[in-house]
Amino acid sequence: MGNTMLEETAAANAVQVMLDDRSYDILIGRGLIETAGEEIAETVGRGRVAVITDETVAALHLSALSDSLDRAGIVHTVLRVPAGEKSKCFPEFERLCDGILEAKLERGDAIVALGGGVVGDLAGFVASAVRRGMDFIQVPTTLLAQVDSSVGGKTGINSRYGKNLIGAFHQPRLVLADTAVLDSLPIRDFRAGYAEVAKYGLLGDGAFFSWLEANWTGVFNGGPERDEAIARSCKAKADIVAADEREAGRRALLNLGHTFGHALEAAVAYETVRLVHGEGVSIGMMLAHEFSERLGLIEPDTVERVEKHLSEVGLPIGLAQIPGQLPPVDTLMDAIMQDKKVSRGELTFILTRGVGEAFVEKAVDPATVRAFLLEKLEA
Amino acid sequence: MGNTMLEETAAANAVQVMLDDRSYDILIGRGLIETAGEEIAETVGRGRVAVITDETVAALHLSALSDSLDRAGIVHTVLRVPAGEKSKCFPEFERLCDGILEAKLERGDAIVALGGGVVGDLAGFVASAVRRGMDFIQVPTTLLAQVDSSVGGKTGINSRYGKNLIGAFHQPRLVLADTAVLDSLPIRDFRAGYAEVAKYGLLGDGAFFSWLEANWTGVFNGGPERDEAIARSCKAKADIVAADEREAGRRALLNLGHTFGHALEAAVAYETVRLVHGEGVSIGMMLAHEFSERLGLIEPDTVERVEKHLSEVGLPIGLAQIPGQLPPVDTLMDAIMQDKKVSRGELTFILTRGVGEAFVEKAVDPATVRAFLLEKLEA
Ligand SMILES: NC(=O)c1ccc[n+]([C@@H]2O[C@H](COP(=O)([O-])OP(=O)(O)OC[C@H]3O[C@@H](n4cnc5c(N)ncnc54)[C@H](O)[C@@H]3O)[C@@H](O)[C@H]2O)c1
Ligand SMILES: NC(=O)c1ccc[n+]([C@@H]2O[C@H](COP(=O)([O-])OP(=O)(O)OC[C@H]3O[C@@H](n4cnc5c(N)ncnc54)[C@H](O)[C@@H]3O)[C@@H](O)[C@H]2O)c1
Ligand SMILES: [Zn+2]
Ligand SMILES: [Zn+2]
Repeated sequence: MGNTMLEETAAANAVQVMLDDRSYDILIGRGLIETAGEEIAETVGRGRVAVITDETVAALHLSALSDSLDRAGIVHTVLRVPAGEKSKCFPEFERLCDGILEAKLERGDAIVALGGGVVGDLAGFVASAVRRGMDFIQVPTTLLAQVDSSVGGKTGINSRYGKNLIGAFHQPRLVLADTAVLDSLPIRDFRAGYAEVAKYGLLGDGAFFSWLEANWTGVFNGGPERDEAIARSCKAKADIVAADEREAGRRALLNLGHTFGHALEAAVAYETVRLVHGEGVSIGMMLAHEFSERLGLIEPDTVERVEKHLSEVGLPIGLAQIPGQLPPVDTLMDAIMQDKKVSRGELTFILTRGVGEAFVEKAVDPATVRAFLLEKLEA
Repeated sequence: MGNTMLEETAAANAVQVMLDDRSYDILIGRGLIETAGEEIAETVGRGRVAVITDETVAALHLSALSDSLDRAGIVHTVLRVPAGEKSKCFPEFERLCDGILEAKLERGDAIVALGGGVVGDLAGFVASAVRRGMDFIQVPTTLLAQVDSSVGGKTGINSRYGKNLIGAFHQPRLVLADTAVLDSLPIRDFRAGYAEVAKYGLLGDGAFFSWLEANWTGVFNGGPERDEAIARSCKAKADIVAADEREAGRRALLNLGHTFGHALEAAVAYETVRLVHGEGVSIGMMLAHEFSERLGLIEPDTVERVEKHLSEVGLPIGLAQIPGQLPPVDTLMDAIMQDKKVSRGELTFILTRGVGEAFVEKAVDPATVRAFLLEKLEA
């Protein structure tokens, strides 16, 4: 199936996240959950473990992880939260902290997150806070979590004032990305995660984007291309994070498509029946390319090329694909102005000079963005 | 008044806490709160500030801080919690996080803790979590907070399962210890804080303990000796923390008197009418010295010397001074076994070979401790 770049590695791929004494491995491969117990024991020892998961993931994949921990002789407790974004909240944070203390976990014991980005973000914040920091292991089960949220150490919960406003930087000791668990993921969630995979190609690795154009069916079907794409994505994020752990400069590139995307998520009031995050990112990336074209940075055929690939995998590529009415342009502009720090009246945007050549532009005139968006809304 | 070691410095004393890129200054002096606004502006700029304080401290010292911030042109919001340990809880943590977001503080703005250890621990945890970490400034107003809790970066709240079990390491950018605000502190709280001051002498600085024996009245009366003692204490803790930020080895010395002390606090069910933390530490330090004598590590006259000084300043020196009935020896032993990690049936204790010569002993036989305590209880 195409020119896979790592055809030779039958075993799990490994990506190292280099952060001095907090460096860790991301292991990627089909069926990794079966040997998770041994991997965890090798990384943090055979102390007690608390597995944090959501109801949906528990029903599908908990028994495999639990059996594996049993085989490794790791005593563990399971703490469940309801599936969905609403679980990233103060009450669940408190309930989980108490649950870990009730289970008598000590400093030096570990917390394992089994689930998507919601479980990872929540469990990671809990791990950062209980006894001022416990060992943390991620077993991400969505594509988005495997290529994005489990890498980089950002953890947190939502406040009534906005998403991810309360949290900590807490790096995991190990990430185990079992790519077979993605087989049970609804296609819409898989696609949403794929938007982030494509993003890594678009923002800094033209060769990877070309490879995706040739090999995306293998990624969706669970062939070796899936492991390959995930490893390549993790590597891209890991390198950016290692260069810029606390988000000062280069890390901003990861926001490609996200300024528009977040505004669209806000515009549909985060109603996921209308738009999920990855879909917003897909449309946002298209808008970022179209806007770059408008500014004379890229040619129309680059825009068409990106559009062709995203629509081919089934992702939405324009505002018209969002069901229902969108708010007026100024509501979108308000969201954009709030999302990213505006300094001296100018906006920071991720623009591009070509596939794989995104850059941070700190002096975008809001009026230009407004005119562009208005046109798109009226098209 | 005696041989003050820093008689020549009329201005504020400064202690540097060396932690690489998170190094910061502790400024110590009478009336520092009057210039807090300028100091804060110099350290973190003139962005917005949220002052977190408790009702009692607000009534006494908030207006001085607030005026100083006004003079420096720093826009600030005040968030209050009830005075007392109960405020170190999840609901106040959530309420404060929301309050800071409601006040529209951004990343880069600062949180100022004005109060004792309760306010410092709570506000510090809030500062660590909002937007995954905001600038944090301590203005400690109790002696305990000035010499102990504001130094070292430990922050946190209590859980129903125990004290300080949820939190973060979050270093302040600046600590402003105005020693004049201690004039309004009830004498019992001042004495309790003094137990920690004496502790620094006893654990590692015999000359400081001798100096305290000669100069303690000046410390209590608010003479220059107070600033001197506080600076010396901060320096002692800062040096230990710099050598061992995450509490692996040497930092354990700070627990001198605390294993017994915590067991006594638990024994009175944390009823502060019977025993406050510093009083438990004072009795605990006496017990640690008596136990060291029992093990042949020190002579009886060393025990007497320590006893003389602690009782002279008005601190309790024995179990008999705790009002009401104490529980049986095995209840105390249970608390001791829980407080410190027991490994292979042996206890870790801070023992001493003389004034200023404490050390960590990892192989104390619980049976010896039990026999010793039984004798003390029956005396
Ligand atoms: N920390 C970061 O750096 C970072 C980065 C990006 C996104 N995020 C966060 O990630 C979250 C979104 O993550 P997500 O998209 O994984 O959402 P999610 O965790 O809610 O998972 C989506 C849904 O899929 C279900 N699910 C998970 N694994 C499954 C599987 N293998 N089979 C079937 N169903 C499965 C879940 O139960 C859930 O209903 C957001 O809260 C976002 O803020 C964090
Ligand atoms: N973070 C650490 O490293 C560390 C170390 C030691 C203790 N602590 C924590 O510190 C807390 C105890 O601190 P504390 O003893 O300062 O208690 P506290 O903050 O409750 O203050 C004691 C009382 O004094 C009042 N007060 C404060 N300043 C005053 C002033 N200038 N004049 C008059 N009244 C004043 C307060 O309102 C309170 O009622 C505990 O929660 C303990 O766990 C933390
Ligand atoms: Zn995203
Ligand atoms: Zn203490």
